[in-house]
Amino acid sequence: MARIVMKFGGTSVGDVERIKRVAQRVKREVDAGHEVAVVVSAMAGTTNQLVKWCGEVSRLYDAREYDVVVASGEQVTVGLLAMALQDIGVNARSWLGWQIPFGTDGIHGKARIAEIDTTEMVKRFSQGQVAVVAGFQGIGPDARITTLGRGGSDTSAVALAAALRADRCDIYTDVDGVYTTNPRIVSKARKIERITYEEMLELASQGAKVLETRSVAMAMQHGVRVQVLSSFVDMPGTLVVDEDEIVEQQVVTGIAYSPDEAKITLVGVPDRPGVAGAIFGSLSDSAVNVDMIVQNVSQDGKTTDLTFTVSHADLDRATHVLEKLKGELAYGEIVSDPNVCKISVVGVGMRSQPGVAKTMFQTLAEKGINIQVISTSEIKVSVLIGSDYTELAVRALHTAYGLDADAE
Amino acid sequence: MARIVMKFGGTSVGDVERIKRVAQRVKREVDAGHEVAVVVSAMAGTTNQLVKWCGEVSRLYDAREYDVVVASGEQVTVGLLAMALQDIGVNARSWLGWQIPFGTDGIHGKARIAEIDTTEMVKRFSQGQVAVVAGFQGIGPDARITTLGRGGSDTSAVALAAALRADRCDIYTDVDGVYTTNPRIVSKARKIERITYEEMLELASQGAKVLETRSVAMAMQHGVRVQVLSSFVDMPGTLVVDEDEIVEQQVVTGIAYSPDEAKITLVGVPDRPGVAGAIFGSLSDSAVNVDMIVQNVSQDGKTTDLTFTVSHADLDRATHVLEKLKGELAYGEIVSDPNVCKISVVGVGMRSQPGVAKTMFQTLAEKGINIQVISTSEIKVSVLIGSDYTELAVRALHTAYGLDADAE
Repeated sequence: MARIVMKFGGTSVGDVERIKRVAQRVKREVDAGHEVAVVVSAMAGTTNQLVKWCGEVSRLYDAREYDVVVASGEQVTVGLLAMALQDIGVNARSWLGWQIPFGTDGIHGKARIAEIDTTEMVKRFSQGQVAVVAGFQGIGPDARITTLGRGGSDTSAVALAAALRADRCDIYTDVDGVYTTNPRIVSKARKIERITYEEMLELASQGAKVLETRSVAMAMQHGVRVQVLSSFVDMPGTLVVDEDEIVEQQVVTGIAYSPDEAKITLVGVPDRPGVAGAIFGSLSDSAVNVDMIVQNVSQDGKTTDLTFTVSHADLDRATHVLEKLKGELAYGEIVSDPNVCKISVVGVGMRSQPGVAKTMFQTLAEKGINIQVISTSEIKVSVLIGSDYTELAVRALHTAYGLDADAE
Repeated sequence: MARIVMKFGGTSVGDVERIKRVAQRVKREVDAGHEVAVVVSAMAGTTNQLVKWCGEVSRLYDAREYDVVVASGEQVTVGLLAMALQDIGVNARSWLGWQIPFGTDGIHGKARIAEIDTTEMVKRFSQGQVAVVAGFQGIGPDARITTLGRGGSDTSAVALAAALRADRCDIYTDVDGVYTTNPRIVSKARKIERITYEEMLELASQGAKVLETRSVAMAMQHGVRVQVLSSFVDMPGTLVVDEDEIVEQQVVTGIAYSPDEAKITLVGVPDRPGVAGAIFGSLSDSAVNVDMIVQNVSQDGKTTDLTFTVSHADLDRATHVLEKLKGELAYGEIVSDPNVCKISVVGVGMRSQPGVAKTMFQTLAEKGINIQVISTSEIKVSVLIGSDYTELAVRALHTAYGLDADAE
């Protein structure tokens, strides 16, 4: 007997028929003798509709009221799934965030989880009851509903698995696992059987939209074994585990790309201490997230060029912030380019294996693709290229690192 | 300064624009210096959709889970209305049933209100805050969400008004008050300025769908001054008050009709003690609501005919129950007729004024309308007629009792 947390996303509970199918999937685990908690999202589309209404009612809405509105989506699906389970003879009840309670801090709209009281839930496990838990929501110190931010149901599931000391946290989604890259642009992409938390974290934050980044970080922190698998196809998915559980280590595990990038270059920035601090401090104050940063060595000892990337959505705001700084910093000009894409190769193997970056640069050079910015971490090399070359670059790298399905 | 409870139904909060209009309406009361609690329903259509999903998931659903699902509708509207109020500078916060707490018994799906704790709400009134309260929902002794049954938001509003000792409970709806009869079939119908609780109760339960019956009974019990008025047109509505507040009493205040009736006659029922008990006991056990009952004096001392009405929805079930009793009771046959309509004339004035029934019977006779069943109470006379004659009868009676608009 194992204790399992299962999580189903919005498309998996998108209508009544799908909710019934989820109930059948849950029943199989129950019939196998497992203790089961199921975390569900709102029906696909519901949360977007609710968020849209909030925006239409008030441009600067109260995050506490926003949480009240958007948390209603999961309330519908937990009730319906509990009914569907009872309908096929499975003892089940729904749990809303405030009922558990699923305690969070008071940062409405993107609350962080504080403490989850699983006492009652565990007691009911022993009576054979399945817990159907509303994802994405909790209760703050002010006794009001909080939400964890978009995609927060993954985090709910992992946090609940940690609190329950569950043997496994199965994330059911509309793909059947984590792939070496997006199968939609590389037909030879392979499903990864096992991936480390660190790799998953890099892939998740680099644009592979399978798991929410925060949930992976939390799984790593608490050692929760996460499995990503399909709620529509019945086959094993991808297991996210500790590095020592990976049997056969590849140098590069996956390739992620993020088209949602824009490049900004400040030309002729005075080369003196405090300038970078002023620039990135102002951007940060305006909630602009800066990703890759490159500063060249000053040629003349007086000025330098500073290049960095922001998300598309932040480009206008960033430009506005920088223009306001022009008087103070006396830089030359702002050059921005929204037509860029970040490509990242990720793998824990590259810690011990040199030459990964070299392969990347050579492969791209052979295809005539210009690298605009480079950034690296211990288990990742990222480059910025013109977005027209995205597919070409990802396919070439996928082959170069021996990831193609027929290369096995 | 007064303390006011305002209630807005589903059509009044049917979309974002209407919610904003409601906020403006609330602001006027706030600007006038009043303490305000606003009770809202779910957006029109939402509750029906949620109920439909429940039925699709499971035919015999758990009422506790049903409550979780359907209570989500009001959660959306309270959040949005609180935002809309804040957006126009009105201090406001939303309250869900469990947050107040709005205590009920544990009869999920049609809970009865137990106790409402208004301490915190009243404290916030004194700080100028408007309470935006989710109608229809409460919390049961099991710390789970309960709902009050369809139309329960009216009851929520009246109960809250009673708990708050509010000066007034204004029920905003899509009509501008209570009419002497349905203006859609009698163009000369007049809006009633003041009506007694008793009359409103009879009209509400006799098919005038303006106020939920239970809310009127509760208002009467606690002496809550209820006003029914339009959320779209800015004019005084109908005040529901104690009899001693009615200045000019009419003999008949209003005429209601209920087309949702079916007549059943049991022919040749043995005329002995216990037979009626057996019949109506069995119907009650099967949750069939019986309304008008007529039993004639036995002609031969051995058998009699028994006629009564049930709602259309219950006709098949009632017939089924009666057929099972045939062996035991040995009655002749069952004759049923779904094409009947109940017409009721209502008025507290008829207590002191004889002849109301006579006027009714004469008026109908003049039009050649046959009366099938008669039933009376202290302030009401009801007759059952063929449904084809509904409009004709209502119009004729409206004129006969001097209710026509141009008769003033």
